[in-house]
Amino acid sequence: MQVEECVNGDSEDLDALLADLAKVNNSRERASQLFQWLINPIPAKTFFRDTWEKKPILVQRKNPNYYKGLFSTAEFDRILRQEDVQYGVNLDVTSYTNGTRETHNPPGRALPFTVWNFYESGCSLRMLNPQAFSSTVWNVLSILQEQFGSMAGANVYLTPPGTQGFAPHYDDIEAFIVQLEGKKHWRVYNPRTEDEVLPVLSSPNFDQSDIGKPILEVVLEAGDLLYFPRGFIHQGECLPDAHSLHITISSYQKNSWGDLMQKMVPAALEIAMEEDVEFRQGLPLDYLTYMGVQNSDKDDPRRTKFFSRIESLMKKLTTYAPVDAAVDQKARDYLHDCLPPMLSPEESASSVKGAPVRWERGQVVGVGAHITTQTKVRVLRAGCARLCSDGEAVHLYYTTDNSRVYHKEEPKSFEINAEHTDAIEFLIHSYPKFVTVGSFPGDSAEDRVALAELLFERGIIHTAEPL
Amino acid sequence: MQVEECVNGDSEDLDALLADLAKVNNSRERASQLFQWLINPIPAKTFFRDTWEKKPILVQRKNPNYYKGLFSTAEFDRILRQEDVQYGVNLDVTSYTNGTRETHNPPGRALPFTVWNFYESGCSLRMLNPQAFSSTVWNVLSILQEQFGSMAGANVYLTPPGTQGFAPHYDDIEAFIVQLEGKKHWRVYNPRTEDEVLPVLSSPNFDQSDIGKPILEVVLEAGDLLYFPRGFIHQGECLPDAHSLHITISSYQKNSWGDLMQKMVPAALEIAMEEDVEFRQGLPLDYLTYMGVQNSDKDDPRRTKFFSRIESLMKKLTTYAPVDAAVDQKARDYLHDCLPPMLSPEESASSVKGAPVRWERGQVVGVGAHITTQTKVRVLRAGCARLCSDGEAVHLYYTTDNSRVYHKEEPKSFEINAEHTDAIEFLIHSYPKFVTVGSFPGDSAEDRVALAELLFERGIIHTAEPL
Amino acid sequence: MQVEECVNGDSEDLDALLADLAKVNNSRERASQLFQWLINPIPAKTFFRDTWEKKPILVQRKNPNYYKGLFSTAEFDRILRQEDVQYGVNLDVTSYTNGTRETHNPPGRALPFTVWNFYESGCSLRMLNPQAFSSTVWNVLSILQEQFGSMAGANVYLTPPGTQGFAPHYDDIEAFIVQLEGKKHWRVYNPRTEDEVLPVLSSPNFDQSDIGKPILEVVLEAGDLLYFPRGFIHQGECLPDAHSLHITISSYQKNSWGDLMQKMVPAALEIAMEEDVEFRQGLPLDYLTYMGVQNSDKDDPRRTKFFSRIESLMKKLTTYAPVDAAVDQKARDYLHDCLPPMLSPEESASSVKGAPVRWERGQVVGVGAHITTQTKVRVLRAGCARLCSDGEAVHLYYTTDNSRVYHKEEPKSFEINAEHTDAIEFLIHSYPKFVTVGSFPGDSAEDRVALAELLFERGIIHTAEPL
Amino acid sequence: MQVEECVNGDSEDLDALLADLAKVNNSRERASQLFQWLINPIPAKTFFRDTWEKKPILVQRKNPNYYKGLFSTAEFDRILRQEDVQYGVNLDVTSYTNGTRETHNPPGRALPFTVWNFYESGCSLRMLNPQAFSSTVWNVLSILQEQFGSMAGANVYLTPPGTQGFAPHYDDIEAFIVQLEGKKHWRVYNPRTEDEVLPVLSSPNFDQSDIGKPILEVVLEAGDLLYFPRGFIHQGECLPDAHSLHITISSYQKNSWGDLMQKMVPAALEIAMEEDVEFRQGLPLDYLTYMGVQNSDKDDPRRTKFFSRIESLMKKLTTYAPVDAAVDQKARDYLHDCLPPMLSPEESASSVKGAPVRWERGQVVGVGAHITTQTKVRVLRAGCARLCSDGEAVHLYYTTDNSRVYHKEEPKSFEINAEHTDAIEFLIHSYPKFVTVGSFPGDSAEDRVALAELLFERGIIHTAEPL
Repeated sequence: MQVEECVNGDSEDLDALLADLAKVNNSRERASQLFQWLINPIPAKTFFRDTWEKKPILVQRKNPNYYKGLFSTAEFDRILRQEDVQYGVNLDVTSYTNGTRETHNPPGRALPFTVWNFYESGCSLRMLNPQAFSSTVWNVLSILQEQFGSMAGANVYLTPPGTQGFAPHYDDIEAFIVQLEGKKHWRVYNPRTEDEVLPVLSSPNFDQSDIGKPILEVVLEAGDLLYFPRGFIHQGECLPDAHSLHITISSYQKNSWGDLMQKMVPAALEIAMEEDVEFRQGLPLDYLTYMGVQNSDKDDPRRTKFFSRIESLMKKLTTYAPVDAAVDQKARDYLHDCLPPMLSPEESASSVKGAPVRWERGQVVGVGAHITTQTKVRVLRAGCARLCSDGEAVHLYYTTDNSRVYHKEEPKSFEINAEHTDAIEFLIHSYPKFVTVGSFPGDSAEDRVALAELLFERGIIHTAEPL
Repeated sequence: MQVEECVNGDSEDLDALLADLAKVNNSRERASQLFQWLINPIPAKTFFRDTWEKKPILVQRKNPNYYKGLFSTAEFDRILRQEDVQYGVNLDVTSYTNGTRETHNPPGRALPFTVWNFYESGCSLRMLNPQAFSSTVWNVLSILQEQFGSMAGANVYLTPPGTQGFAPHYDDIEAFIVQLEGKKHWRVYNPRTEDEVLPVLSSPNFDQSDIGKPILEVVLEAGDLLYFPRGFIHQGECLPDAHSLHITISSYQKNSWGDLMQKMVPAALEIAMEEDVEFRQGLPLDYLTYMGVQNSDKDDPRRTKFFSRIESLMKKLTTYAPVDAAVDQKARDYLHDCLPPMLSPEESASSVKGAPVRWERGQVVGVGAHITTQTKVRVLRAGCARLCSDGEAVHLYYTTDNSRVYHKEEPKSFEINAEHTDAIEFLIHSYPKFVTVGSFPGDSAEDRVALAELLFERGIIHTAEPL
Repeated sequence: MQVEECVNGDSEDLDALLADLAKVNNSRERASQLFQWLINPIPAKTFFRDTWEKKPILVQRKNPNYYKGLFSTAEFDRILRQEDVQYGVNLDVTSYTNGTRETHNPPGRALPFTVWNFYESGCSLRMLNPQAFSSTVWNVLSILQEQFGSMAGANVYLTPPGTQGFAPHYDDIEAFIVQLEGKKHWRVYNPRTEDEVLPVLSSPNFDQSDIGKPILEVVLEAGDLLYFPRGFIHQGECLPDAHSLHITISSYQKNSWGDLMQKMVPAALEIAMEEDVEFRQGLPLDYLTYMGVQNSDKDDPRRTKFFSRIESLMKKLTTYAPVDAAVDQKARDYLHDCLPPMLSPEESASSVKGAPVRWERGQVVGVGAHITTQTKVRVLRAGCARLCSDGEAVHLYYTTDNSRVYHKEEPKSFEINAEHTDAIEFLIHSYPKFVTVGSFPGDSAEDRVALAELLFERGIIHTAEPL
Repeated sequence: MQVEECVNGDSEDLDALLADLAKVNNSRERASQLFQWLINPIPAKTFFRDTWEKKPILVQRKNPNYYKGLFSTAEFDRILRQEDVQYGVNLDVTSYTNGTRETHNPPGRALPFTVWNFYESGCSLRMLNPQAFSSTVWNVLSILQEQFGSMAGANVYLTPPGTQGFAPHYDDIEAFIVQLEGKKHWRVYNPRTEDEVLPVLSSPNFDQSDIGKPILEVVLEAGDLLYFPRGFIHQGECLPDAHSLHITISSYQKNSWGDLMQKMVPAALEIAMEEDVEFRQGLPLDYLTYMGVQNSDKDDPRRTKFFSRIESLMKKLTTYAPVDAAVDQKARDYLHDCLPPMLSPEESASSVKGAPVRWERGQVVGVGAHITTQTKVRVLRAGCARLCSDGEAVHLYYTTDNSRVYHKEEPKSFEINAEHTDAIEFLIHSYPKFVTVGSFPGDSAEDRVALAELLFERGIIHTAEPL
C-alpha cells in the first residue's frame, strides 16, 4: 500500500485564517477553504478521489505552528479550571500498560488538582467534546460539518512522555489526527478482513498479536496530519522525551448508503403494500411445507417459483422507494447532530442573537427597528435550515438553536403552512444572496413580513444591515 | 362479476364426519377432506384457483342440517351458563339502528339473565372465540388451520328477528359465512377502489351511501355457505320472522407476500451491510444539496446518478434476502397463533396427555412403561412442530402446549443441540409414518431415547401403541 | 409449653355436613359451625382464647374418615388429568435430602405422566391453590373466610413414603394441618426469639442445628389435626411404610394491628397537616445543628425540647387517626382476596347466576320474571358486599364476581350515589332477613327497583323465591 | 393586626459587605450577620420571635442604594445576552390584565430582542433562578441557607410601568420582597381561613372578590423590604410612572414539623412491628362487622375497645419514633437542595478547586505539595457535610459538588467506613477551628492522611495554608 508524504511550506495563523474565512460570503465555500487548509498541500479533489475511505495519508510539515491556535494544553488547563468538566462525561483518564487497557475515572468534576495528578502518574487524558469548551474548536467543526454533510466531531488526547493510553483498535469514523504539541509514534494497520473494511461499528481493543504488521509507522510532530479511514487499526505511543497533544477530527459516522437504505427500505415496503395489490396477495397455502430452514435442502420446483416471486417483488420494491423522503430523514438527523453556527460579530449584530435591543439607563432601547418588506435577509448558513416533509405536514428543521453539547437540545423544527413553503424554498435557494422580504413568493406584504419575523426570531435568517 | 350457485344433495352428521376424519392417517389429508366438506360441492382445487382472494361465492343447499353439530344457540346458552364468558372479551352486545352502530357491553361476566335480556331488547350477540368454549369448533378450526397454513379463527353471531347488528364494512380476513339456524338477508359489495382490494386492515363502519350497489343479494338459510375475500363490503340483517345464527370461519390475516417481506427486507439489509462493502461506503459529500424533498424539482445529473446507485443497491439487496429464515419467522408466529391439536382417545392414550400413569388405591400405577429404541413414534400432527434457526441457535417450536385462548400462552420452544437436528428433521419428514426410536440418526441408543423422552414429555410425539 | 391432646368419637361425612350447612340461614353462623367441625372437640371459644396465635395444639381422633371428602390423592390425579395445572404456578415438585432443599419444576403443564414419575422418584408434590380445582375445598374455604374476617387459603402436600419434602421453617400464617391420608411424623419448635413471635414474614429454610429441640413431636394420622401459630418452626417427614396427604388451611396473613396502622398512620398525618396548624409550623431554624445521628450523643436541652414537641405532636396525631376509613381500606383488600361464595342450587336459582332465563326451542324463555317492589331480597352472604368511603365518593365493593384464582380478577366495585347509601346499609344490616324492595329507604318505587336490579345483576343479592 | 415600620439610616455597599463577611471565620456567624443586614434595623432575635411565620413586616429605608449590587436590570440584560436563558425554564413572560392572568412563553432561548419586545408590550418578566446566572445572588443565598437550615431560593421580577404581572395569590414559602429599582404598590391580605395559615401548598390565582380587604398597603421603593409568611395573599402593581425590579428571597418550603413526621412515622411503625409483638398480634376475628364507615354510627362497646387499643398502640408508637434518623433524612434532602458554597480566593487556593497544580510551559507544576499529618484542615462551611446513617451504613453527604442549578446534580455522598466516623465527627465538630490531620482519631498516620486526601479531593475540606 502506497502512503503519500508531503512537505508544507507556508504557515498561517489560525485566528487570522478564521477571521478571513468569516468574510467569505458562502458558508459552503468557507467550508471548502478550511478543509483545504486542514489537508494542505493535498488538493481536496485529489484527496476525495484517491484517499478518502480508501487509505491512510500522512502530511509532514516541519512546521510546528501550522495548527497553532486550534487547541493547546494551556487551554486544556484553563478549561479544567473554569468549566464544569465531569469525569466520564467530558474527560476520560486511561492507561495501556503491559497490554492492559484501563479507565481510571473517579466520580464528579475533573479539577486540575486531580487531573494533573493522574497525568503525572502516567495516565492519558481524553477530552471528549472540546467544542463545548473551546470556541475555536467549535468554530472549526461547525464550518467543517458543511464540507462533510455529516456531523464533524473531535476528541483531544494528552499523553505523558513514555506512555501509551489506548490499545490498538479501529473506529467507525473517518479520522484526521492533528498533532498540536510534542510528538507521537503512530502505527497504522490494514483492516484485517474484507468485513472490517469501512466497518459499521468500532472494534474492541486488540492484542498486539491480532493485528499483523503496520503498513505505516511514523513519528508525528506538531503541525503534522495523519488521516485514515474507518476500519484501519491504529495505535500511538509517546516517546520518552516528549508529551503529545493531538486532536482527532472525525466525521461520517453512520453515513453510508446502507444507513440511508435503513430509512428507505421499510418505507418503500409500506408504500408498495398500500399501492400494489401483488404485495397484498396471500402466500401459497402450502408454502410452510417446502420453505424454511427445515426444507432448505429440498429440491422442489415450488421453492424455485417462490424465490422468483420474491425476486420479482424485490424488483418492484425499488420503484416504490421514497428516496427523497429517506434523504430528508437522514437530513433531519444530521441537522440535529450539527453544531450551531458560530456567528461573526457582524452576523450577530444583524441577527436575533445580537440585535441591539437592550436595557439602558432604566429603560429598553432599540426596539424601534423592525423588519419591513424592504429589509434584505438570507439564511445564516447554506445548511442551517431545511424543509422536510413527513408525508403529511412540512416542517422546517434548523440548527441555530442547537447546543454545543451533542443532542443536549431536542431536534428543532416548526410546521410550515403550505402557503409559506415556496417562500422558504426561495429563501434557501437564494443563498448566499440577500433578498428583500417583499420579494418572497406569497399572498400579502403582512404575510411576508410575519414569516420573516418568525424566521428572524428563531435565529434562522439575518439582515443585510443591522436592524 | 359471476357468482356461482350450487345445490347440494347429501347430508352428513358432523360428529360422524369428525370421527371418520380422526381415522385419517395424515393430518394434512384430514384438513383437505374437512375443507372439502365445508365448501361442497365446489371442488377445492377449483375454489382455490378461481374464487379464493378473487370473488364471493354462494352455496345454497336446501339442507338445514348440513352443518348441524357445529354450533347452536342451545350450545350458546350452555356456554353462558357453565363457562366464564366476559363481556368485551368473549362476547359483544351490539346494535345497528337507523344507521347508528352501538356496543352495549356492561363490565364483568356475561350471564344468561343479562345476555338474554339484551337479546330480547333487539341486540345482536357476537361470541368472539367460540373455540375456547366449544370442543367441536376447536376441533374443526384446529384441523382447518393445516389446510390454510395460517391461523383459522371464528366468531359466532346471533341476531334477533327483524334487526341488524353491524354496519356495512369489510374485514382483513377471508370469510366463510356458515348459516347454522334461521335465515339472514345478506348484501355483498365490491371493494370500492383498487387500494381496498385485499386490504391490510379492516374498514371502519360505512354509511349506506358510501358503498354503491350490492353485487350479490341473498337470503342465507341454515345449511348454506357464503364466502367472500377480504375487502368485500358486506352487511346482513334478519327477516322479521326468524332469528339468525351463523359462524364465520376466517383465515389469512396478515399472511401476504408483503407481510413476509416485512420480516425479510430489514434482515436482508443487515446482511448486505455486513457482507458487502458497497453498502458500507459513504454517501456523496454533497448529497444533501441536491437530494431531499426540497430539491426534488431540480433537474440535476447528480440526482440521476444517485437514483441509479440506489437502484443498483436494491438489486443487490435481493441476493442477500434470507428467504428461508424469514419464512421461519412467519412460521414461528403461525405456530404461536395455532390452536393446539384436539386428540382422539387413541392419540391421547399414546401420548403424554393420556399416558396411563395414575394414582390408584394408595399408590402410583403404570410408570413401568417406558420408551425404548423399539418404541415406534411420530409427531402428533404434520405441522405441530418445526425447526427454526435464528442464525445462531436452532429451536424447535411447537403447538401442543398452546391454549385454546389466543396467545394466552407464550410461544413454546426449546433449543435443539446441533447433534439432534438431524433426528428431528428425520422425524418430521417421516410423518405420517411411525419410526422406531432406534432408527433416529444419532450417536447412541441412550441419546436417541433421551431425545424421544423429551419430545414425548412435551406432547410433540405419540407412540404407535400406548406405553 | 402445654400441648393439648383430644380424642374424637363421632364421625361425619363432609358432603352431608356441607349440605346441612347450606341450610343454615346466616353465613356467619355457618362459618362458626364449619370452623367448630374443623377443630372438634375443642370449643371454638376456648381455642380463640387460649390457643390462637399463642401455641400449637393437636387433635388425634383415631378416626381416619373424619375429614373424608375434603380432598384425596384420587382427586389430585383427576385434577392433573382434567385441569390445566402448571408447574410453578399450581404445583411444586420438591425434595429435602441430606439437608438440601430443592425444587424440580420443569416448564409447562403438569401432566400425570411427568408428575407421577417425579413422585415415584421420591419427590414431594405441593398443590398451591386446590380451591381453583376442587369445589369442596373452594366451598370450605369460602365459608371459613367469614369466620376469620381474613382470607382463608390452602395448600395440599403429597409425600412419598420415607421422604421429606421441605426444610424446617416457619410461615407468616396461622396453620391448620389436616391429615387426609397415610401418616406423617411432625416436629414443632418454639419461635427462636421474641422477634420471631408472630412474624411478619416467613423464614428462610433452616439447618437442623438452628432450631433447637422440638416442643411437640407426633405422628399425625388420617383424621388428625395439628394447629400452630405463625412463627412456630415445623417439619414433617413420611415414615417408610406410608405416604402422606395433608391439606394446610391458613389465614391471618398480614392481618395484624400494625398492618392496619400502616394504612391509618400516613392518612392520620395528612389529616393532621390539613387541620392543625401546629403540624404546619416550621422546624426550629437551628435544629440540624443539634439533631440527627451526628449529634445524638450531645447533651443539649434543645434536644429534650425537640423530643417533647415530637411527643406532643404524636399524641395529637392519634386524635386525627381515621380508624374507620383505614378499616375500610383493609376491608377492600380483604374483599379482593376473598373467594367468591359457592352457591347452593336454591341460591343459584334465585340469583343472577341461575335465573331461569334461557334459550329453548328457538327462542328466549323466562325473561318475563322481573323484580318489583314486592320482591323480597337479601345479600348473598353477610360479608359479600361492603360500603367503603375514600373520603370523596362511596363505593360498594363485592366478592361475588371474584375468581377462584387469587387476584385473577381486579377488585370489583361500583360507585353508589349518595341517595342510595341508606338503602344499601339497610340491606346489609338486615341480613340474614329478606326485605321487600319496596321497604328500601329511598325516593321512589322506580328508584328502589332500579337499585335492586343493579344489585341483582352484579350477583350481590338473591330473591326469597326464584324470579 | 399590627404592622411594624422602621426607618434605616446607615447604607452599605453589598460588595464591601460580602468581602468583609468572607473574613468572618465561622459560616454560621456569617449567615447571621448577612441576615441581620437583610432585615435591618429589626433585630433578628425579635424578628424570629415576633414576626417569622406570624405576620408581615415592612422596612422603609429612604435609601435607594441599601441593596445595591444584589441585582439590577442591567445585570438582567447582560444575562440574556451572555447566558443560555430558556423560556419556561429560566424565564417566564406573564401578564395580568382585567383580571386575567396569562403566560406568554415561546419555545427556546430567551434573547434580548424577543424579551424586551415582550416587556415593551406590557409583559412582566420573572427570572426563575437568578443564582444560576448571578454570582452575587448565588453568594447571598448560599450564605443565607445556613441561617435558615433550609434551602434559600430567589426569583427576580421586572414589571413595566402601569402594569401588574400576577394575580393575587399566596405562596408556600416565607417571602422577603427586596425592592431593587423603581417602585411597586403592594397589598397584603390575611390568610382567608385557619386552614390557609402556614399552608403546605401555594394557592391558585384568586379573584379580587375572594380576598377581602388588605391588612397592609404600601408603595415599596428601592432599598425597602417587605416580609410576609406563607399563606398571606399578596399582589403588587407598578405605578404609571416607574418600572419595578425586585427580588424575592424565599425559604422554609416543606420544612415543617409535619414534613419531618412524614419521614419519621412510617419508619417508627416499621420499627415497632419489628420490635413489639403487640403490633404483630392479629386483629379481632370479627372487627370488620363493627368497624368501618358502614358501621360508624353503631353504638357498640367493641368499637370503644378497638379505639382504645389503637390509642394505646399510637402511644407506644411514639417510643419507637426514630427522631434523629428522620432528621438525617430531612438533612439529606436539605444538603441536596443546597447551593454549593461560593469560595473566597483564599478558600479556593487552599482547596481542591484552586489548588495551584497546573500546566505551565509544557509540563505540570505544583503537584509536589501534599497533605501530611502536620497539615491543618477544616470543613469549608459549618454545614457543607453531614454524617447520616440509614440504619445499616453511614454515609457522608456534602454540598460542595452541588450545582447552582437546582437538583441538576444527584445527591452527593460516599460511604464512610466505621473506623473513620469518629475522625469525621471530630472534624465537623471542630469547625471553625483548623485541626492537624495528625490529630484525627484513627489507627495510623497513613490512614489519617488517606482520609484527609479523600475529603480534600471531594472539596469538603480546605487547608489553613495553600498546599
